[in-house]
Amino acid sequence: MDYLGLDIGGTEVKAGVVDDQGRIVQSDRRASEPNDRTRLFETIAELIKSVSANRTPRAIGVGVPGLVSQNARVVDFAPNVRSLNLAPVSDLIAEISGLPSVVANDADMNAWGEFAVGAGTGTRHMACLTIGTGLGSGLIVNGRLYAGTRGYGAEAGHIVVQDDGRACGCGGRGCLETIVSATGIVAMAREGLERGVPTILRSMLENGTEGLSARMVLDAATLNDAFSMSIYTHTGRYLGIACASLINLLNLEMIIIGGGVSAAGEYLLGPAIGEAKSRTYRHTFESCQIVPAKIGSDAGIVGAALYAAKKYN
Amino acid sequence: MDYLGLDIGGTEVKAGVVDDQGRIVQSDRRASEPNDRTRLFETIAELIKSVSANRTPRAIGVGVPGLVSQNARVVDFAPNVRSLNLAPVSDLIAEISGLPSVVANDADMNAWGEFAVGAGTGTRHMACLTIGTGLGSGLIVNGRLYAGTRGYGAEAGHIVVQDDGRACGCGGRGCLETIVSATGIVAMAREGLERGVPTILRSMLENGTEGLSARMVLDAATLNDAFSMSIYTHTGRYLGIACASLINLLNLEMIIIGGGVSAAGEYLLGPAIGEAKSRTYRHTFESCQIVPAKIGSDAGIVGAALYAAKKYN
Repeated sequence: MDYLGLDIGGTEVKAGVVDDQGRIVQSDRRASEPNDRTRLFETIAELIKSVSANRTPRAIGVGVPGLVSQNARVVDFAPNVRSLNLAPVSDLIAEISGLPSVVANDADMNAWGEFAVGAGTGTRHMACLTIGTGLGSGLIVNGRLYAGTRGYGAEAGHIVVQDDGRACGCGGRGCLETIVSATGIVAMAREGLERGVPTILRSMLENGTEGLSARMVLDAATLNDAFSMSIYTHTGRYLGIACASLINLLNLEMIIIGGGVSAAGEYLLGPAIGEAKSRTYRHTFESCQIVPAKIGSDAGIVGAALYAAKKYN
Repeated sequence: MDYLGLDIGGTEVKAGVVDDQGRIVQSDRRASEPNDRTRLFETIAELIKSVSANRTPRAIGVGVPGLVSQNARVVDFAPNVRSLNLAPVSDLIAEISGLPSVVANDADMNAWGEFAVGAGTGTRHMACLTIGTGLGSGLIVNGRLYAGTRGYGAEAGHIVVQDDGRACGCGGRGCLETIVSATGIVAMAREGLERGVPTILRSMLENGTEGLSARMVLDAATLNDAFSMSIYTHTGRYLGIACASLINLLNLEMIIIGGGVSAAGEYLLGPAIGEAKSRTYRHTFESCQIVPAKIGSDAGIVGAALYAAKKYN
């Protein structure tokens, strides 16, 4: 039996038909229209048609970047795809496709994918942190996706790691994602460039700090640029502080690190694991593995499809 | 049916026979011998005999200050009652009393008491923070005490709230309990006194900072001593930072604040609630209440007895 996974992002919508082993049999993607609900759902309709041309999915799983109210099947708050605010996504998907669907936070869907067929198979208590533009997360507790009181948990990106840190989009300050995200990495690189720190990043840029990206900082780090390496070490250390809080609070079996920024591999995970170890009881630390994600950039599609499979199998 | 609750602390052991409504029908307490296992269990035997003279409990619940391995029924790590390290507490209790028992972390037992018959009745997802010498915590997830992979969760006292803060007993730095605890309050008061800050605390002390206590700082705050009030505001703010992390991470329905330090009431909760609100999404904040504990200093006995009742009813 096949299921369809949708991953709605601020810049792109991805869709895929996935078999019950988590293999993508057909996938497609389109630029998204984050602020126009009609256009957004036209794009979604086209994608559903495109990927299910040869296979008929039984149900659809939808990952959205925002707070999803579990009971009401409504997106309560999606700051980066504003047309989803208060949208009855399941109803709209049913109108388009005639199929039942389950709607959830996109990072929760990544976590579900990693739990079901990725790095976390066989665990009971795990977190998956998806580090991209921001930092999303999902939590598996007792083998089930943790929803919390209204369906909003888990937002590990808003664990406070720096009591007097940078302002965050959530209204807070010093949240994990102000540091551990592409946005945080770029901000730190820009501050250094503006301070006049010696770095090959300057020669990689044509016009001031325009075009600066986390990927570029990683490329510079792999060329042994000391400043760029220090940015990843700093980022990794704060990732480790958050891992320590998660380990101490939840005695997790595994923390999975995914998302585009996790391409930095050991530049990020090395400092993270060291920092987490230094801030936890030995007993608790030793029962937790901190590992890279397995599924890659399609985790959202795979996770959403498999989450629909769980609900509608 | 009655159950017996034991609360083993670093300075004192408390015991009580509790009915299935959570009412204490008989209780007693003795000084503890934290580093002598034989003496400690002699004391426990006396207490069990004393409180069950007129009522016969069906089982015993035991709260201990440390990491309790859920499966092995062994205390893995109890830094403040060293004689409990690797002790098979259930077996020892059975030898003494002939009764079955359940052993758990003391703050988990406080949380269970508040969940079962205190401020948290009717909730599904809640945390209870017990602020005393340190900061212990318990977490209820889906109406069950959260244990984690090996039984160690939840240790909210070791959420990192200050990335470069004071050294903590766990080996880490800037953990919640380095600030939000009697120890943290006394440390902050002492630093101020040594810096020469104007405060009536000085006149309350006879010999330098000897005898300084969190209670004394609270007494001074209620006399409008600005320095002492600022200590509770600071402590409350960091409590609020931790609440924000808990709310964002777990979308909790309730956070209950108990333990001796919570006697400060609004001095602590006022700043905590304000800070938590400023660091969370409105939707998530509004679904969570931050409230004082209801049961008071016997929560450990009541919770342990009711936890035994749940297991052996």
